[in-house]
Amino acid sequence: MTPTITAFEASPDRGRGLARDTRIRWALEEVGQPYEVRLLSFAAMKEPAHLALHPFGQIPTYEEDGLVLFESGAIILHIAENHAGLLPEDAHARARAIAWMFAALNTVEPPIVEREATGYAERDKSWYEARLPLLDARIHTRLGELAARLGDASWLDGPFSAGDLMMVSVLQRLKSSPLLDKHPALKSYVARAEARPAFQRAFAAQLAVFEGRKEG
Amino acid sequence: MTPTITAFEASPDRGRGLARDTRIRWALEEVGQPYEVRLLSFAAMKEPAHLALHPFGQIPTYEEDGLVLFESGAIILHIAENHAGLLPEDAHARARAIAWMFAALNTVEPPIVEREATGYAERDKSWYEARLPLLDARIHTRLGELAARLGDASWLDGPFSAGDLMMVSVLQRLKSSPLLDKHPALKSYVARAEARPAFQRAFAAQLAVFEGRKEG
Repeated sequence: MTPTITAFEASPDRGRGLARDTRIRWALEEVGQPYEVRLLSFAAMKEPAHLALHPFGQIPTYEEDGLVLFESGAIILHIAENHAGLLPEDAHARARAIAWMFAALNTVEPPIVEREATGYAERDKSWYEARLPLLDARIHTRLGELAARLGDASWLDGPFSAGDLMMVSVLQRLKSSPLLDKHPALKSYVARAEARPAFQRAFAAQLAVFEGRKEG
Repeated sequence: MTPTITAFEASPDRGRGLARDTRIRWALEEVGQPYEVRLLSFAAMKEPAHLALHPFGQIPTYEEDGLVLFESGAIILHIAENHAGLLPEDAHARARAIAWMFAALNTVEPPIVEREATGYAERDKSWYEARLPLLDARIHTRLGELAARLGDASWLDGPFSAGDLMMVSVLQRLKSSPLLDKHPALKSYVARAEARPAFQRAFAAQLAVFEGRKEG
């Protein structure tokens, strides 16, 4: 059965691929699984029909054969567990790849999202400019640690995995800022992942939603 | 082989059980797996020997039979996958329980940790008092959505699972604040989980580290 994911009808990032449906599209493209997309308005995301699927009223969700999932980490892990290509066969390597998924979402993403949230919610506050260096310093600490572990390897732990997919999708949020410039190994890491045909297809698919809306 | 976890030699929470080793201890107690603990000073956490285990220089880590894991989410998922008791047998229910683990770590925990981090890092700043209501509002939004989904159920999705363990371990961070008072269903949910014998044993074990240090 073809899975259905949800995405923004009008993505706030205007087709830059930073909404969390892109990482799901990417995982599905990596494993060669076709999918359907249901687009949602911001109002619809907070209505009971969607809250029944996603308790926090967000995108993406994933529906397949009676299963409903939310949280991009859980959706990508589910896809990776049910298709070859995103998790190693070896049990230890598999557990380590999953650890990188959690590291991306729970250690690297929070200070990055905090900086974004501050940009939305506190840009008009008197303290906004004074706080930015504090937020940047927290992100740089994490990026430095991540770059040190990556070293000159192509991927975080052996072949490309769901852990790399998730980490890159988190680092992409920094592309409009100068923060990645201080970590050239991470910039190359992101570029290497974005060159993958599966990412290209996923990016084009989410961009088509934005462009369709512009024309429609 | 008995797994070894790492924990703070001197926990900053003084035995309140909020360091992330407690949730690992809890998971191991739920499945009846004995474990060893290696205590680390703050200095040792940032030394090469520990960074080889944990790229971000934190606790907990988990070592077992040549496998090294970091990230509490990854460690608990690994424990749950290799022992009965923390994940349902049914594949769909299992995927949903894992979704709650990710929701705890990526949707509910970040604004809670942000409030804590602000308390540590910005308490002396002029804007500290003015920002607190903004941070609290973000947490209340998430707690309200979580309470709405929980309703009058005992656990988030069927029997107690690793998803509940993780969610409760995140909500416990709010116990020293008044934020949970506005969400009595979540207060009861936390109390219900804390009454579990496995949690009691885990809590006692981490407290013994703190009390041993006091006496030692």
